[in-house]
Amino acid sequence: MVVTPTLSRSRRLRQTPYSDRVEACGAKAYTVYNHMLLATVFRSLEEDYQHLCENVQIWDVSCERQVEITGPDAAALTQLMTCRDLSKAKYGQCFYAPLVDENGGMVNDPIILKLAEDRYWLSIADSDVLLWAKGLASGRGMDVKVFEPDVFPLAVQGPMAEEVMAKVFGEKVRDIKFFRFAELFYQNHRMVVARSGWSRQGGFEIYLDNSALALDLWDRIWDVGKDYNIFAGCPNGIERVEGGLLSYGNDMSSENTPYECGLGKYVNLEADIEFVGRKALEIARDQGLGRKICNIRFDKRLETSVSKSWDVLNVGGDHIGNISSGCNSKKMGGFIAIAMLDQEFWDEGTIVLVQTPLGDLTGTVANFPFD
Amino acid sequence: MVVTPTLSRSRRLRQTPYSDRVEACGAKAYTVYNHMLLATVFRSLEEDYQHLCENVQIWDVSCERQVEITGPDAAALTQLMTCRDLSKAKYGQCFYAPLVDENGGMVNDPIILKLAEDRYWLSIADSDVLLWAKGLASGRGMDVKVFEPDVFPLAVQGPMAEEVMAKVFGEKVRDIKFFRFAELFYQNHRMVVARSGWSRQGGFEIYLDNSALALDLWDRIWDVGKDYNIFAGCPNGIERVEGGLLSYGNDMSSENTPYECGLGKYVNLEADIEFVGRKALEIARDQGLGRKICNIRFDKRLETSVSKSWDVLNVGGDHIGNISSGCNSKKMGGFIAIAMLDQEFWDEGTIVLVQTPLGDLTGTVANFPFD
Repeated sequence: MVVTPTLSRSRRLRQTPYSDRVEACGAKAYTVYNHMLLATVFRSLEEDYQHLCENVQIWDVSCERQVEITGPDAAALTQLMTCRDLSKAKYGQCFYAPLVDENGGMVNDPIILKLAEDRYWLSIADSDVLLWAKGLASGRGMDVKVFEPDVFPLAVQGPMAEEVMAKVFGEKVRDIKFFRFAELFYQNHRMVVARSGWSRQGGFEIYLDNSALALDLWDRIWDVGKDYNIFAGCPNGIERVEGGLLSYGNDMSSENTPYECGLGKYVNLEADIEFVGRKALEIARDQGLGRKICNIRFDKRLETSVSKSWDVLNVGGDHIGNISSGCNSKKMGGFIAIAMLDQEFWDEGTIVLVQTPLGDLTGTVANFPFD
Repeated sequence: MVVTPTLSRSRRLRQTPYSDRVEACGAKAYTVYNHMLLATVFRSLEEDYQHLCENVQIWDVSCERQVEITGPDAAALTQLMTCRDLSKAKYGQCFYAPLVDENGGMVNDPIILKLAEDRYWLSIADSDVLLWAKGLASGRGMDVKVFEPDVFPLAVQGPMAEEVMAKVFGEKVRDIKFFRFAELFYQNHRMVVARSGWSRQGGFEIYLDNSALALDLWDRIWDVGKDYNIFAGCPNGIERVEGGLLSYGNDMSSENTPYECGLGKYVNLEADIEFVGRKALEIARDQGLGRKICNIRFDKRLETSVSKSWDVLNVGGDHIGNISSGCNSKKMGGFIAIAMLDQEFWDEGTIVLVQTPLGDLTGTVANFPFD
């Protein structure tokens, strides 16, 4: 049985400027992400999924906190934090960028926005990158200001997202390419709008930096969206596992290198850049991979959920990895999962034994992401 | 109405080695603390409170994660992180220590344990101190290892705690003074045991560093405790507000200096020590305090809870501060709260207007902590 306990509310689990609307739309469950509330279900995981894939949803993703780095050393500090080469980064681009520590372990996997030559936003996953950045800056005596600005991202996701956004921000929205942003006006207030979002259904993220406008903006999107069957949504557990979107803290941690997470293409050791963990990642590259992120498929639904790591064994009973996330997928014909598996067992089609809350079950290894 | 939503479970919200027992004892609600589950209520806040004050409780406080700092520069790095003078720190002492950033803002308020000349544990509140410490160490090129060890604190709290602990760890436990620790044996395994804990009812914290022993240790304490009416518990919202225990993220944040939090005695500017934020705190000291932590009392129960900041106004309607935590207290004859108030209004007895979810209500300022 999956226990669904109550979440105790406190100021420490921060609300957002949109919280009233999220509650009014009937959010059934929440998680905590960057010390902030994030809804996880409105109608049901399955209904939310279906609606997202066919319509348009408005997501309160305020918990994607920004770490703002400004000042003469802003570019150097931002580069110091990621193994991805940012030397050719331009205004208007979004960079998915693994942040690594001195051991080459993942610290976070933000999207980095270059707002100006001396101004960056790191739109972060669930860890206090602010402290990491401030520690590095203080330790090195860098000439930067590092802080969490009052920015509260709102995502508009789904196939009808562009139609809705065009009515709110104007036709210019259509010109924004994938992983690019523009600064557009809403009520005479300029804000960053990017074609991005934590789904594979297309859409935008609005980086609202004026919380006084929050409910107004939500309501405007909602009103316009009615013609497109808009509803409130949130990052969806089914959609993201099907789509191969990794979740920091679930599928990867500081125990993992970007290589293990399938993010090797963002490790630009060939570039002449300085970043923390470079030496460790050079060693990791030379040693080769011992384990990596894979998928595992089951041939039926499983009436459970992955609330903690599930051990994966080979047919001989040896521990060969673990499952970190999973869901029932109608599209895939059964339960699907994300797993970190040892080398000898990561080939597609390998049969493995998984210790689930329902007992030991047979699964089949699949490529990550699913084709 | 206070909404009590469901908490979505995922691996990212880490379970602990004691989670099975916590669930079995009927934990009704949880919070998330350092990316880990922390129970908040078992029977009811009031029943848990009464039981804690009269008996003994066992608390899974694994979420008090340790940041371990070892190596030749361990003492220097640990000192660099706190304004409290650690130069005379000795093995066996626990130090409540504000950590501050370059602006003198609170980063965390851990208890620091000096385990050896070159080995410290920071037993932290809810922020990723690990990243702060690693950033500073990396930035300065310090010769240290900084990591989160597999330590899972278990607290035994309440007036009968010493009796139970003596039966589990032997009579030596009685010799441990307040905020001191000793290394004692359980099943031939040496572990740190401190007389400390997040209540004012007395008790101990066991820093279990072998999760394989977790359930065994829990069960042993439980069995011994039966004679003393033991039950599962957790940091209690009533007891801690009555007792004046501040909660990082609720009552204080990086927006606050230690002075504002009433922690001035831990700001040892008179000592010849180097720490981040020293200059900022010198300026803060010289400028004097503009606001500080106070209590506010209401003369009746309030059927609500503080799930977000409540604004506090003076009788003229000007904003003068905010309430960050609160609870109904039978002992104090009504609802009591912790607030940050501007200087002109922090005197005991000042009448203030508080914007609560139940409407505007009159409260009376009281000293922090309550006498």
